[in-house]
Amino acid sequence: MKKIVTFGEVLLNLAAQGDLRLKQSNSLDLRFAGAESNVAASLAQFGENVTYITRVPKNDLAEKVINTLRGLGVDTSKVVYGGDRIGIIFFENGAVYKSSKVIYDRAGSSIATIQEGSIDWKQAFDGADWFHWTGITPALSASAAAVTKEALIAAREMGLTISGDYNFRKNLWQWGKDHTEVMPELLAFCDVMSGIHPDVNIVEEAVSDELYASAGEDMMKKYPNCKVVVFTARGSISASHNTWQGVIYDGEKVYRSANYDITHIVDRVGGGDSFMAALIYGLRNYPTKQEAVEFAAAASTLKHLIAGDQNMVSVEEVEALMNGPKNGLINR
Amino acid sequence: MKKIVTFGEVLLNLAAQGDLRLKQSNSLDLRFAGAESNVAASLAQFGENVTYITRVPKNDLAEKVINTLRGLGVDTSKVVYGGDRIGIIFFENGAVYKSSKVIYDRAGSSIATIQEGSIDWKQAFDGADWFHWTGITPALSASAAAVTKEALIAAREMGLTISGDYNFRKNLWQWGKDHTEVMPELLAFCDVMSGIHPDVNIVEEAVSDELYASAGEDMMKKYPNCKVVVFTARGSISASHNTWQGVIYDGEKVYRSANYDITHIVDRVGGGDSFMAALIYGLRNYPTKQEAVEFAAAASTLKHLIAGDQNMVSVEEVEALMNGPKNGLINR
Amino acid sequence: MKKIVTFGEVLLNLAAQGDLRLKQSNSLDLRFAGAESNVAASLAQFGENVTYITRVPKNDLAEKVINTLRGLGVDTSKVVYGGDRIGIIFFENGAVYKSSKVIYDRAGSSIATIQEGSIDWKQAFDGADWFHWTGITPALSASAAAVTKEALIAAREMGLTISGDYNFRKNLWQWGKDHTEVMPELLAFCDVMSGIHPDVNIVEEAVSDELYASAGEDMMKKYPNCKVVVFTARGSISASHNTWQGVIYDGEKVYRSANYDITHIVDRVGGGDSFMAALIYGLRNYPTKQEAVEFAAAASTLKHLIAGDQNMVSVEEVEALMNGPKNGLINR
Amino acid sequence: MKKIVTFGEVLLNLAAQGDLRLKQSNSLDLRFAGAESNVAASLAQFGENVTYITRVPKNDLAEKVINTLRGLGVDTSKVVYGGDRIGIIFFENGAVYKSSKVIYDRAGSSIATIQEGSIDWKQAFDGADWFHWTGITPALSASAAAVTKEALIAAREMGLTISGDYNFRKNLWQWGKDHTEVMPELLAFCDVMSGIHPDVNIVEEAVSDELYASAGEDMMKKYPNCKVVVFTARGSISASHNTWQGVIYDGEKVYRSANYDITHIVDRVGGGDSFMAALIYGLRNYPTKQEAVEFAAAASTLKHLIAGDQNMVSVEEVEALMNGPKNGLINR
Amino acid sequence: MKKIVTFGEVLLNLAAQGDLRLKQSNSLDLRFAGAESNVAASLAQFGENVTYITRVPKNDLAEKVINTLRGLGVDTSKVVYGGDRIGIIFFENGAVYKSSKVIYDRAGSSIATIQEGSIDWKQAFDGADWFHWTGITPALSASAAAVTKEALIAAREMGLTISGDYNFRKNLWQWGKDHTEVMPELLAFCDVMSGIHPDVNIVEEAVSDELYASAGEDMMKKYPNCKVVVFTARGSISASHNTWQGVIYDGEKVYRSANYDITHIVDRVGGGDSFMAALIYGLRNYPTKQEAVEFAAAASTLKHLIAGDQNMVSVEEVEALMNGPKNGLINR
Amino acid sequence: MKKIVTFGEVLLNLAAQGDLRLKQSNSLDLRFAGAESNVAASLAQFGENVTYITRVPKNDLAEKVINTLRGLGVDTSKVVYGGDRIGIIFFENGAVYKSSKVIYDRAGSSIATIQEGSIDWKQAFDGADWFHWTGITPALSASAAAVTKEALIAAREMGLTISGDYNFRKNLWQWGKDHTEVMPELLAFCDVMSGIHPDVNIVEEAVSDELYASAGEDMMKKYPNCKVVVFTARGSISASHNTWQGVIYDGEKVYRSANYDITHIVDRVGGGDSFMAALIYGLRNYPTKQEAVEFAAAASTLKHLIAGDQNMVSVEEVEALMNGPKNGLINR
Ligand SMILES: [Ca+2]
Ligand SMILES: [Ca+2]
Ligand SMILES: [Ca+2]
Ligand SMILES: [Ca+2]
Ligand SMILES: [Ca+2]
Ligand SMILES: [Ca+2]
Ligand SMILES: [Ca+2]
Ligand SMILES: [Ca+2]
Ligand SMILES: [Ca+2]
Ligand SMILES: [Ca+2]
Ligand SMILES: [Ca+2]
Ligand SMILES: [Ca+2]
Ligand code: NI
Ligand code: NI
Ligand code: NI
Ligand code: NI
Ligand code: NI
Ligand code: NI
Ligand code: NI
Ligand code: NI
Ligand code: NI
Ligand code: NI
Ligand code: NI
Ligand code: NI
Ligand code: NI
Ligand code: NI
Ligand code: NI
Ligand code: NI
Ligand code: NI
Ligand code: NI
Repeated sequence: MKKIVTFGEVLLNLAAQGDLRLKQSNSLDLRFAGAESNVAASLAQFGENVTYITRVPKNDLAEKVINTLRGLGVDTSKVVYGGDRIGIIFFENGAVYKSSKVIYDRAGSSIATIQEGSIDWKQAFDGADWFHWTGITPALSASAAAVTKEALIAAREMGLTISGDYNFRKNLWQWGKDHTEVMPELLAFCDVMSGIHPDVNIVEEAVSDELYASAGEDMMKKYPNCKVVVFTARGSISASHNTWQGVIYDGEKVYRSANYDITHIVDRVGGGDSFMAALIYGLRNYPTKQEAVEFAAAASTLKHLIAGDQNMVSVEEVEALMNGPKNGLINR
Repeated sequence: MKKIVTFGEVLLNLAAQGDLRLKQSNSLDLRFAGAESNVAASLAQFGENVTYITRVPKNDLAEKVINTLRGLGVDTSKVVYGGDRIGIIFFENGAVYKSSKVIYDRAGSSIATIQEGSIDWKQAFDGADWFHWTGITPALSASAAAVTKEALIAAREMGLTISGDYNFRKNLWQWGKDHTEVMPELLAFCDVMSGIHPDVNIVEEAVSDELYASAGEDMMKKYPNCKVVVFTARGSISASHNTWQGVIYDGEKVYRSANYDITHIVDRVGGGDSFMAALIYGLRNYPTKQEAVEFAAAASTLKHLIAGDQNMVSVEEVEALMNGPKNGLINR
Repeated sequence: MKKIVTFGEVLLNLAAQGDLRLKQSNSLDLRFAGAESNVAASLAQFGENVTYITRVPKNDLAEKVINTLRGLGVDTSKVVYGGDRIGIIFFENGAVYKSSKVIYDRAGSSIATIQEGSIDWKQAFDGADWFHWTGITPALSASAAAVTKEALIAAREMGLTISGDYNFRKNLWQWGKDHTEVMPELLAFCDVMSGIHPDVNIVEEAVSDELYASAGEDMMKKYPNCKVVVFTARGSISASHNTWQGVIYDGEKVYRSANYDITHIVDRVGGGDSFMAALIYGLRNYPTKQEAVEFAAAASTLKHLIAGDQNMVSVEEVEALMNGPKNGLINR
Repeated sequence: MKKIVTFGEVLLNLAAQGDLRLKQSNSLDLRFAGAESNVAASLAQFGENVTYITRVPKNDLAEKVINTLRGLGVDTSKVVYGGDRIGIIFFENGAVYKSSKVIYDRAGSSIATIQEGSIDWKQAFDGADWFHWTGITPALSASAAAVTKEALIAAREMGLTISGDYNFRKNLWQWGKDHTEVMPELLAFCDVMSGIHPDVNIVEEAVSDELYASAGEDMMKKYPNCKVVVFTARGSISASHNTWQGVIYDGEKVYRSANYDITHIVDRVGGGDSFMAALIYGLRNYPTKQEAVEFAAAASTLKHLIAGDQNMVSVEEVEALMNGPKNGLINR
Repeated sequence: MKKIVTFGEVLLNLAAQGDLRLKQSNSLDLRFAGAESNVAASLAQFGENVTYITRVPKNDLAEKVINTLRGLGVDTSKVVYGGDRIGIIFFENGAVYKSSKVIYDRAGSSIATIQEGSIDWKQAFDGADWFHWTGITPALSASAAAVTKEALIAAREMGLTISGDYNFRKNLWQWGKDHTEVMPELLAFCDVMSGIHPDVNIVEEAVSDELYASAGEDMMKKYPNCKVVVFTARGSISASHNTWQGVIYDGEKVYRSANYDITHIVDRVGGGDSFMAALIYGLRNYPTKQEAVEFAAAASTLKHLIAGDQNMVSVEEVEALMNGPKNGLINR
Repeated sequence: MKKIVTFGEVLLNLAAQGDLRLKQSNSLDLRFAGAESNVAASLAQFGENVTYITRVPKNDLAEKVINTLRGLGVDTSKVVYGGDRIGIIFFENGAVYKSSKVIYDRAGSSIATIQEGSIDWKQAFDGADWFHWTGITPALSASAAAVTKEALIAAREMGLTISGDYNFRKNLWQWGKDHTEVMPELLAFCDVMSGIHPDVNIVEEAVSDELYASAGEDMMKKYPNCKVVVFTARGSISASHNTWQGVIYDGEKVYRSANYDITHIVDRVGGGDSFMAALIYGLRNYPTKQEAVEFAAAASTLKHLIAGDQNMVSVEEVEALMNGPKNGLINR
């Protein structure tokens, strides 16, 4: 099968240990973060041929992160080197009424200082049929937004399917333009896009099929290229207990997955990324959209039960949950 | 604002790691414990000016504990040095049907062997308007009880508001007198006192306002100085799941906080101390008693979700829970 | 009281740390596993005089495991040394919808290559009145099955009570015979046997007393020596949340324990072993079968809340749960 | 005694664990770094009254670092809050032929973006008689250099003794001016200064008293305010084995400490800072310069045997080495 | 072979991790300490039949320690239970010029409050032919000294060989009598005794055979029962580098072991205990005294290279060093 | 440049933590081992294009190891899957007189049960110009020996340079033939081979150039294909202190590297592998053999100072040691 390409920022994720707060933890676990690298890692675990593109500095920290991605099976041969630093996220896990906490220290990262023309998109997309990006990248800097646009133009020219995740972060978008000035032009390239973004009311509670269809229709009218609108419905009972369901709308019909009751969350970060990755896998590998959304929901449910931002699960493990009993028996 | 003074025993807390039993754990996490130092630490996190007084030996273990308290912003310049040892608590966490377990090794500690006159209370209370103590200190030894009384006399003379927490521990009170012989005289000094103590039926389940008011009235009759009676209502569904609500009575009215459903407890030790600290903060900083009890309940709910005996939360974090949605979203 | 003897395979259990997957964990916690050694360890914690027999190689890993068992109070003086390796289990814990995962690496272990005649059963059973075995041992190899039969013959000759746990593992039984060809002859020696095995429908949900009685009767007809049939009813709500109840049938009456709602499981591995151990203790030490099954259910409930395969609890701790309130208060 | 003030940048120090390389370490130990904060921490361990001034952002990471300094007894009440980030050092320890490795990520830190006038130096120096600074601060940015100069002018006006450590770092000084354009004006304020800086040949091997005297004279001619020139002579046999000696020149005489043979270095980072701190202590507290330099050398030798950048030793421990046998017996 | 009995205090040893100071370490490794338990553990590793007797409280901490000893193969069936606490040692490792540091918190331990008559020495010595004690036990309390004397009287009556280690600790001996008033009477029972004690000049440097013989003769004159005087010659080059040699005198001849150059000490605590244990083994199992002292020196050299107070080595490992090349090749 | 291929067994390396013995360590660090994978990993760190071939089972443990290799930049696309298990090494580090200890548990591994014809060597060697193997692989089983021979035949046919490392392990070679019956035929294919093997006296001490030349000549006579004979001279002063020098002979001249004095070894396992890898790099990338052997010696010296079996160093780091001062200064 042809390859998938993702592009964005990868960050060090320095996480307080166990249940400790950042204020309390005397050692930090070194992981990595970044929506598009999470999607790439997840797709590689499913056996997809996936290339991840970013820009990082030449130092041991960036090398360690890129090595980890390559170890997970992601092609990193198109990564560009340069700039001054890799961005950092400091993270502490939440519990019940205590929210997870993130301290961002990503200003001035190598991806933010990337210049137009530094990536050869023709070469990058050679052999590929899918490109995935998120709204985090254009939020970083004017040049990162420009490079994102370069990618989208090239992807369309070369006939790739394009998926985009709005991923709005209110603390980003500090480089001069508001997201509403930048995103519409970029979203217009997308075949698949997330339906939950700042222009639409957040859909968290159980919603009728009609409402999903109506929200999807609005998206499709605004972005005529769009063929699939993607929703994830999170019921945030507490930081430790969520419900989680995937919904897609294809212009004709609403497809709803099982609604998972995740009663003892281990780590919900990367949940949305794992959904998007698994949905891309599902749309490419299953005959029906219903199966695709079921696969995506089962996969991302498992992500909530795995430490770290990446979804370390195989297709077999996802299908076992998707198709089988849902009570976590010991396999032996 | 004027400063708050607390006085009592601080102990090493040597805790089994993660879910391990003391029998199983090959390393122990070094923390500290002690109701009054917990209250001081909590108040310092809220930005209050707070002085903690105790007596510890001159060794590296006591130095480490005092340094930690000072680091948290507590004034430790009035700590007295001498005696032979710092008391120790060995702790293992509980889960569902398995109770938490504590092994006390506190006999002969420096605070238990304190002598009358060793603390200059006039100087200690200079610039203060509030004194907090608990029933643990008089339980330790005759001289610790006597020094507590010295403190109370000085505090009253200097016009401080006095709050007391009965904190009955059945394994203490071994120095010759029963708590019923000692505590009433000391409680008589208090403006604010906990309503749950051995003379009153423990209030754990949902109780009517009438019953709280009646229990409060009984306290106020017995202790005419008392202006606020404090209750915490814990619903012990299991060691991992409690409900938690704060209630105060001011002689006129019962004020009840939201009732929190703490479904995945991280560590409930210090929960009562964190409530008392936050109530002191609330009574000093909010215009209404309702806000004070809401602040205290929200703060101490967060304590249940934080490892260790001290409540490492800021006023902003407490107010976010107190005033906002209660479903632990990720802030980013 | 006379001693109890158990016989079987002990394995290294190399467990991923905390919530990590085996794929993620860079260090593995070294524990031990094995149904019969778990039973022995549990009985020793209850103060029983218990001898554990196995065959392990002469190396530091086996020495460490045997030392741990001896440290827990199990008599290991009858352990036989020889062969090439100790079997290994690699383990990762489950959570909610993520199953626990076990990778077995036990082929060629010293117990699988044991030869008939290598254990002096007369000497081993000297002073004993109870022998416990499980269906794991005959599953390992023809010779391990033969040695199990030697043990059973000797135990019957010397008048010991015999308990057997079917413990069917579909990945074992690779040595040429199917379990249905081997087990019936061995089960026929048993006075006490587990009622849940591959010949009987698994009983996991609430079942009527009549159904238990009927299943028990079937067993007793097939195995006339059998005096007590043992059931454990697990309600697998998720990998983190189970219900757990013990049931025994003595040919006359069904005895049912309290049904525990284990809402936050720490580690369910060894749950069945801990039930069997506690039931053996209960049948030997309580006047009634009802107390025996209550003790077994309370003990094994606690096992679910303790890390590792062994049930590190005392009789006092089990009785506190069995007889007391079930809400996990802090004891201090 | 009057207080000492130090001013500079404090950084997070994220250190690879044990002997691991940054490339290998999956968790990083969270410490702090920064020459001037190291000096402050060391002086506080000696019981000196010391104030540390810096600028850090308002976040949990900076709070943790400042809390640690305060816990060590340093007055942090003059710390200024603002800016975007706390600088970070990533560190891996060396061994024999493998150099220690440091990755700096300090650009854009709150201290680098400090503005002139943001510190009230009159208030900061109130009650102080000594000010210590290093050449790292003016290397950070034009404004940090300007604030350093403000401090020096105020310190001279208020009659403080001033000590300065050149601490040349070739990777800094990127803000437009070369260190040779900036440092001389600042060094001219100093009463005590380090003799090893880029203008002078590095003195690492055993050097004659005459050479030290001559190098000292050169400094004193260039900087007429200078009364004490400070040298540390490190014999770098390997990353694990150094010799270490302190030398000072007071315009009249060379004072040389014992030459320590540090055969098994634990962590040499902060060695120079600990020397400077102990020399300041020595010059203030011993009657002779010989004792001062002996104290400084003994103290900083101990730093090489302690993990982390700060010298966690008391005056008693330093004097035990300075005056006693040097063979590391166990004290019990 | 007949069994060996040792008697004394066992303590928790809570050790700072790695190279950290107690002031720095946020977790402490839980080990155990105590000269006589160290000797017992070491003898059990050599395959000797050894019984250790002490008095500890009934709690999980003491149970853990006793279980560890039993796991190591020591018979703990004669341990007496009672009293209030197990003593504690807090430990930090040394390096080069930094001494190891020990904080004792052992007052009021169960062994110190033992009463005369609480141990049935006839039963304890049944089947034994050797008794080992040290001067630490009589230093703890009057009653501990009295029970030591009871043991010695019984041991002599039953014909056991008696070995004693002076083990003078200046911080003990606080119960009213000086060691010079108590020890001579107890040492008079010994067949084997350490020659290094407070009455004799410490022998640390290379000493002539004549001097050892003369010191040994002095001991034998004072204690006519003494048949073997034991010296260990430690050359304390630094806390990380010692030389180590064993010497014994039997009234006729001085036997000297190889002199080991321990250039990279891991943990020297328990070095003397491991020497004594291995000498007891050597005197019982080798035909010549020369072999005995060589075995003791090789064994205790290995102890310096093993973390913790106990010498976790087998006879084979000791003999490999004693008889083979001494350059630490990898065995594979 | 063309690619290098290595082939052999990769094993899990489960290592006792820090200075602990396997008997003591309660967690084991998960690493990987295997001479040929070590060589591949090292070459990839140097930027070489390297393919590693082995056979491993389909499970999470093997996946983790292969992922780690791929992450380090090794091409693992030719790895064959099948068989039952990945071999295991249990490892404990040595110190001074205490040897490192290895427990092998590698019988029945997937590489040992490989069948002839399972690897497509034509495809594997496509684009390659160098093949490296060691004597460990033919030692595993008859079929592993046969597959090694297949590889050598194909490599010669395709014109690759072949390097072989005898790597004799006395505990292997259990499949029926002695190494002397198998190895000569395989060594005859080699262009580059290690000179230290069981047929030649081990060269550990300083040896004259004449002796090296003479040993090299013997090898070249026996194996006429051989163009370079490789020696490493280790001076085993202790397990913590070795000297280390590389020597090669090319039929004409002896080339000797600097002799490194590795005074504080961190982990010497993989030292020989790292030498071989760096020599291959050196022979391919430097104009002179002297530079090649200097690079190899410097690289492998650094390996002794890095934890784990793989040499995690870059060309820049090796050249800094090879060409620069050798005293481990801090780079900042
Ligand atoms: Ca993400
Ligand atoms: Ca959580
Ligand atoms: Ca408390
Ligand atoms: Ca818990
Ligand atoms: Ca089991
Ligand atoms: Ca779990
Ligand atoms: Ca520094
Ligand atoms: Ca080092
Ligand atoms: Ca000792
Ligand atoms: Ca050390
Ligand atoms: Ca190797
Ligand atoms: Ca070592
Ligand atoms: Ni993320
Ligand atoms: Ni829940
Ligand atoms: Ni949880
Ligand atoms: Ni507490
Ligand atoms: Ni719950
Ligand atoms: Ni198990
Ligand atoms: Ni639950
Ligand atoms: Ni939990
Ligand atoms: Ni098990
Ligand atoms: Ni530093
Ligand atoms: Ni050295
Ligand atoms: Ni070292
Ligand atoms: Ni000791
Ligand atoms: Ni040394
Ligand atoms: Ni000791
Ligand atoms: Ni290796
Ligand atoms: Ni190896
Ligand atoms: Ni050395």
